[in-house]
Amino acid sequence: MTEINNTSLPIGVFDSGVGGLTVLKAIREELPQENLVYLGDTARLPYGTKSPASIERYAIQATARLQEQGIKLLVVACNTASAVALDALRRQMEPVPVIGVVEPGAMAAVAARPGGAHLVLATEATVRLGAYREAILARDADAQVREQSCEMLVALAEEGWVVGVIATAIVRRYLDEAREDSFVPDSIILGCTHFPLLRATIVAVAGEGVAVVDSAGTTAAVVRQVLDANAILNDTEKPGRVQLLATDGVTRFARVGGFFLGRSLTADDIELVDL
Amino acid sequence: MTEINNTSLPIGVFDSGVGGLTVLKAIREELPQENLVYLGDTARLPYGTKSPASIERYAIQATARLQEQGIKLLVVACNTASAVALDALRRQMEPVPVIGVVEPGAMAAVAARPGGAHLVLATEATVRLGAYREAILARDADAQVREQSCEMLVALAEEGWVVGVIATAIVRRYLDEAREDSFVPDSIILGCTHFPLLRATIVAVAGEGVAVVDSAGTTAAVVRQVLDANAILNDTEKPGRVQLLATDGVTRFARVGGFFLGRSLTADDIELVDL
Repeated sequence: MTEINNTSLPIGVFDSGVGGLTVLKAIREELPQENLVYLGDTARLPYGTKSPASIERYAIQATARLQEQGIKLLVVACNTASAVALDALRRQMEPVPVIGVVEPGAMAAVAARPGGAHLVLATEATVRLGAYREAILARDADAQVREQSCEMLVALAEEGWVVGVIATAIVRRYLDEAREDSFVPDSIILGCTHFPLLRATIVAVAGEGVAVVDSAGTTAAVVRQVLDANAILNDTEKPGRVQLLATDGVTRFARVGGFFLGRSLTADDIELVDL
Repeated sequence: MTEINNTSLPIGVFDSGVGGLTVLKAIREELPQENLVYLGDTARLPYGTKSPASIERYAIQATARLQEQGIKLLVVACNTASAVALDALRRQMEPVPVIGVVEPGAMAAVAARPGGAHLVLATEATVRLGAYREAILARDADAQVREQSCEMLVALAEEGWVVGVIATAIVRRYLDEAREDSFVPDSIILGCTHFPLLRATIVAVAGEGVAVVDSAGTTAAVVRQVLDANAILNDTEKPGRVQLLATDGVTRFARVGGFFLGRSLTADDIELVDL
């Protein structure tokens, strides 16, 4: 318990790769005084097409590295790992609080469109587990939920092709598939941390009246609430430090991660860790 | 040495995922009497965006599984692993002969267009190592080589979107990038085992007069030659057995693998192995 009472300990942010940097960025904006350590498990990415057993094993191995270093809170910034492994990670990290991104994403969608028809864009693994469906229906029994797996959107975000005719055609194809059987969404949930990069294209294709929500902002707000509730907010005026760790390919991490963080990174900004 | 003299032992075919099934299929057509065992390291795919050290380690772990089971020849059906880890795999497998796909691909391109301008479409890791450039120039000092990394083509093939406006637009974008500085290819090498699925689209975008070559057919021919040279061709009339192994996600392996093999697979056709 001593450890989690040390308010200057960093918040750990874990993702299968670089996508979770969108969540890191939102936490940084919400809580600029907090120290942050981000771990991208780039050696084993993507998680979204793997089996639940492998995803859980990888997530536990990776977050053990953050646990050793000492963190006061863990954010599981990967939708797939949040959907598959949150309970296992909570048992492992106890007494450190653990926040996933599925619940905040569901909260944001229900708040935006009460009783609405929600379309969840996510990875295969997240869709297979129906984690968003469960989280939304637990909050809003009148909601309708459709989940659509969209692996090509991950590739688009990683390639940096986030606007233009190709991105538009791919988004349109997935939305058309999801709209079969007269399902008309009034909210679209970006259920993978890669997808906020494609927000402008998704908004344009979805058209007016559709709320496009992601987990990042709501997750940052939940982080603040949990830190506050546990009396472990970092009580300082100084801007916090940000440490970036990856399990493989720091050069690629820097290049692709720059898109997500919205500023350029070099390989020297990333520390390679071996699991 | 006893083992490799057992002609009924299977040929091992190793890939990071399902793409190498295009090579398995070509070997099956060339040598229908041979027993084949295919291992897709789906738990750690894709290799193409990872570091050379990780790729080598993964390839050695995965092929050790085939070595234990007993094989008379190893085909490294993954371009990335062939580019990065072929020497290490040869040391590990000795005295079992090991064939990669880069050399056969280079042979096919040089044969198709002597003194030609070759465009290699491949993964990031294969491009970074310049393996095709080296293999082509060693055979044909007059050749010109340009290498282009095309991660989106991997995603297209896995999603099964191999023809149509989206596939065409993506292929056109990569070919336009490659043609900058007035480089005019007269051969295109499909330097990733995923890309033969996109052959029709690539041929259509490339236009007349461009030879589109892949490794699969030439690799199968080289396999025959090496078996023959070592006097380990399976001397029987019976059709050989095919065994499919994967390190994760047999359901996805079956679904995506079916595209590559050109026939439908079910999860029961795939054996899950733990490395």
